[in-house]
Amino acid sequence: MTLIVLNFKTYRESTGLEAVRLARICEEVSRDHSLEIVAVPQVADISSVAGAVKIPVFSQHVDGVGYGGFTGHITAASLKAAGAAGSLINHSEHRLGLAEIEASIASCRQAGLKTIVCTNNVATTRAAAALEPDYVAVEPPELIGSGIPVSKADPEIVIKSVEAVKRIAPNVGVLCGAGITHGEDLRSALDLGSVGVLLASGIIKAKDQRKALEELVVGAF
Amino acid sequence: MTLIVLNFKTYRESTGLEAVRLARICEEVSRDHSLEIVAVPQVADISSVAGAVKIPVFSQHVDGVGYGGFTGHITAASLKAAGAAGSLINHSEHRLGLAEIEASIASCRQAGLKTIVCTNNVATTRAAAALEPDYVAVEPPELIGSGIPVSKADPEIVIKSVEAVKRIAPNVGVLCGAGITHGEDLRSALDLGSVGVLLASGIIKAKDQRKALEELVVGAF
Amino acid sequence: MTLIVLNFKTYRESTGLEAVRLARICEEVSRDHSLEIVAVPQVADISSVAGAVKIPVFSQHVDGVGYGGFTGHITAASLKAAGAAGSLINHSEHRLGLAEIEASIASCRQAGLKTIVCTNNVATTRAAAALEPDYVAVEPPELIGSGIPVSKADPEIVIKSVEAVKRIAPNVGVLCGAGITHGEDLRSALDLGSVGVLLASGIIKAKDQRKALEELVVGAF
Amino acid sequence: MTLIVLNFKTYRESTGLEAVRLARICEEVSRDHSLEIVAVPQVADISSVAGAVKIPVFSQHVDGVGYGGFTGHITAASLKAAGAAGSLINHSEHRLGLAEIEASIASCRQAGLKTIVCTNNVATTRAAAALEPDYVAVEPPELIGSGIPVSKADPEIVIKSVEAVKRIAPNVGVLCGAGITHGEDLRSALDLGSVGVLLASGIIKAKDQRKALEELVVGAF
Repeated sequence: MTLIVLNFKTYRESTGLEAVRLARICEEVSRDHSLEIVAVPQVADISSVAGAVKIPVFSQHVDGVGYGGFTGHITAASLKAAGAAGSLINHSEHRLGLAEIEASIASCRQAGLKTIVCTNNVATTRAAAALEPDYVAVEPPELIGSGIPVSKADPEIVIKSVEAVKRIAPNVGVLCGAGITHGEDLRSALDLGSVGVLLASGIIKAKDQRKALEELVVGAF
Repeated sequence: MTLIVLNFKTYRESTGLEAVRLARICEEVSRDHSLEIVAVPQVADISSVAGAVKIPVFSQHVDGVGYGGFTGHITAASLKAAGAAGSLINHSEHRLGLAEIEASIASCRQAGLKTIVCTNNVATTRAAAALEPDYVAVEPPELIGSGIPVSKADPEIVIKSVEAVKRIAPNVGVLCGAGITHGEDLRSALDLGSVGVLLASGIIKAKDQRKALEELVVGAF
Repeated sequence: MTLIVLNFKTYRESTGLEAVRLARICEEVSRDHSLEIVAVPQVADISSVAGAVKIPVFSQHVDGVGYGGFTGHITAASLKAAGAAGSLINHSEHRLGLAEIEASIASCRQAGLKTIVCTNNVATTRAAAALEPDYVAVEPPELIGSGIPVSKADPEIVIKSVEAVKRIAPNVGVLCGAGITHGEDLRSALDLGSVGVLLASGIIKAKDQRKALEELVVGAF
Repeated sequence: MTLIVLNFKTYRESTGLEAVRLARICEEVSRDHSLEIVAVPQVADISSVAGAVKIPVFSQHVDGVGYGGFTGHITAASLKAAGAAGSLINHSEHRLGLAEIEASIASCRQAGLKTIVCTNNVATTRAAAALEPDYVAVEPPELIGSGIPVSKADPEIVIKSVEAVKRIAPNVGVLCGAGITHGEDLRSALDLGSVGVLLASGIIKAKDQRKALEELVVGAF
C-alpha cells in the first residue's frame, strides 16, 4: 500500500492548533482516497494530534536511549505513551550518529513503533537498510524544500536505492522525498520502485493545504 | 519565593501516565506547603501533564530555532502551545553550544517561556548569567544522581556562583542541583544564597515519591 | 599592538605545502610592517608551518580534554608539542558547547597557549568574555566569506561588544571578523575599539595573497 | 596479512616526542617480526611521526569535508600532505553521523587514504560494511580500556561481524578491538576470522611498551 508521509517540520502552519487542523485534513484525504497518510507533527504536538485523528502519527525524531538519566532526550516509550505509531530517524535536518540510528531503531522496535530512516544518497541508503528499519527514505539534501522533485531531478538515486535495498534487506520499504509536490511527482516516485513519499513544504506552505494534498493524491492515480 | 524544580528525566516512574501521576503529587505538595514546585516531564508528556495540573510545567530542553525547516527540533512555540511555562536549557545530559544556548533563551523570551540554564562550574555559571536567562542552575556533573548533595560536597561552588551572578547579572536567580534529596540539603542550598533547587533521582526513584518530596519540603523549613 | 589573525581554513590555497608558503608571506609582511600576524593553518599542518616561520602559529580548534582515552580529539598538549602558540575556539564553522569552551580555555591555559574564542553576537560575546580567554572575536555568521566587512555592515555589533567586554572582563581583547579584506576595513575595525581582526577568504582566495595582505596592512595605517 | 593497529589516543605516553618514540618501537617490532603495524598518533603529531618512521601512519579521525570554509575540521588532503596513509573513522570516542562516515570514506578514497570504520555491535558493523571502507573494526564500548579482550568476553560479536561483512561486502576486512593486550587475545581474534586488531591502552600504558608489543606479537604466532 502506498505510504504518504507528511512531515510537519516546525512551520507556523503546522504547530500547535494548526498541527491538529492539518492532521484532520490528512485524515479526511486519507479516508476519501483510501490511502495511508501519516502525520508527523512536532513532539510536543503528538499527544493532541494523536487524540484528534485516527491516522498514524509519527514523531520527527527519537533518541536511542531508554529509561533513566537522559534529560531532554526523546524516548520511544514517551512517544508511544503520547499516541505515536512510529518515528522518522536521522532526518537531514537532525542527523544522528551511526550507533545512535541503530539504538533508535532498537528502542522503537521494543516500544512497538515503526521506523523510517532518512538517508542522503545511495551509499547511506545501503547502510541504513543494513540496520533493517521498516523504511528508508532517501532525500538528496540539496532538493529538500526546493520544489524540484527528486523523482524528476535525480531518478537514478531512487532506482539505485531500490536495487541496493532489495539486495541487502528486501523487507525494508524505500520511500523517496525532497521536492515532492504534485501528483506526477508521486506517480514517478512509485514508478521508480519506491513504496511512498515524504512530503513537507510543498503541502504545508501551500495556500490551500487540503487542495494541495488532494491534487497530489488524485494526480498520481 | 523558593523554587523547587523536579526534573522527571526519562525514568519509567515519570513517563506517560506516571508523569501525570507524579505531577499531581507535585501539585498537592506545592499547595499543602505554599511552595512553588515546577514539574519537568519529557516533551511528549508536556501536553497531558499541563492539562492535568495547575503548577508550572517546564520542558527539559528547547532548541533555539523558530518556525521553518527544523525537523526533529523542539521549538519554544510548540512547547508554549502544549502548555509549558518554561524550559531547562543545557542540562548536563543534553549540552548545547554557546550560540545555541543564546538562541534558545531568545526564542523562549519571545514565546513567553521562563528559562533555566544549567551549568557545571563557576566559570560556565558566569558565562550563562551573562546571557541573562531567568535562572542559572549550577550542577557539578560528578554529583548528579550520586545522592551526595552539592550543598554539602561542594558549598564553595554555590557560594561563588551566587557571588559571580550578583556581579554580572543581579536579576538572574541561582539554583543549585545534583544530589539534593533531603530537607537539610535544600536548607543548606538556600543558606548558601541559592533561590531554589533542581531535584531528580532522589525523588523520582524513591519508594514513596510523595513522602520523599514532603520530607524534603518539611525538613527545610 | 594590533593583532592580525589569518585563518587558513581548509582551502586548497592554504593546505600542506601551500600552508607553509602562505605562512612565509605572513611572516614577511609582518616583519616589513612591524605588525603581529598570526598564521592559523589546519592541525595537520601546524608542525611544518611552525618549523618554517617565526611568527605565532595558532590552531583552528582545540578540544577541552587532556591526556587519556580521547581518540580523535585535538589536545592542547599535542598542539603545544607541534609548535602552536595558541588556538581559535568555537569558530562559527566548528561550534562548541559552553562547557567545552570553558574546558578548552582551561586546557590551553595549562599548556601555555593563547586563546581566541569566536562569537556570533553581543550576547555570546558577553558570555565568552566571562570565561576570560585572551581574546574574543565577534563574527556575524551571515557576513563570513561575504566580502562585506562587519566594521561597515554592522559597526554597532563591534562597538557594543567592546563595551560589554570592558565591563565584564577588561583584560580580554576584542577582535572582529567576517568580510574583512581591505585596509579601510581594518582601519574602521580598530577605530571601533577592537584590537585586531580575523581574516580568511579575502586574503586566501586573492589572486595575489601577498599583495592582498600588504594592501590591507598599508591601507590601514 | 595480519594488521596490527596501535591507537595512540591522547595519552601522555604517546603525545609529541613520545609519539615519535613509540612509533619507532612499532617500526622495529614490525620489522623484527615481519608484521604490518600501523601507528595512529594524534593529528598534530602525524607530520613528525610520518617523517621519522617507514611504517604506515594513520589519523585517529578525519572529517568528510573538502577544500573550503571548514575551520577546525580535519581534511583528508591535509592528512595526506602530512604523511598519513589512512585514518580511523567513527571511533567510539569520536562518533560520527551516518552521512559523515560516508563522506569521510569518500574523501579518504579521493585522497588515497585507507579507511577503518569503527563500530560497536553487529548491526552497525553490517551498516558500516555497506559503505565499503577498507576495514571495519568492531569494538564493544564497554570493553574498551577494560583489559578484558573482546575475543574472549564476546567471541560471538566477532564471529557474527565476520559473517555479516562476508555477505554484504566481502572485500572489507574485519578487525576487532577492545581489551586486546596479550598474544593469546590476538591469536583468538584471528581464529575467529578477523584479519587484525586495534590496540591501545594495553600497550601504551604498559610499563615497557616495547616488551608489551613484542609479547603480543610473539605470543600470537
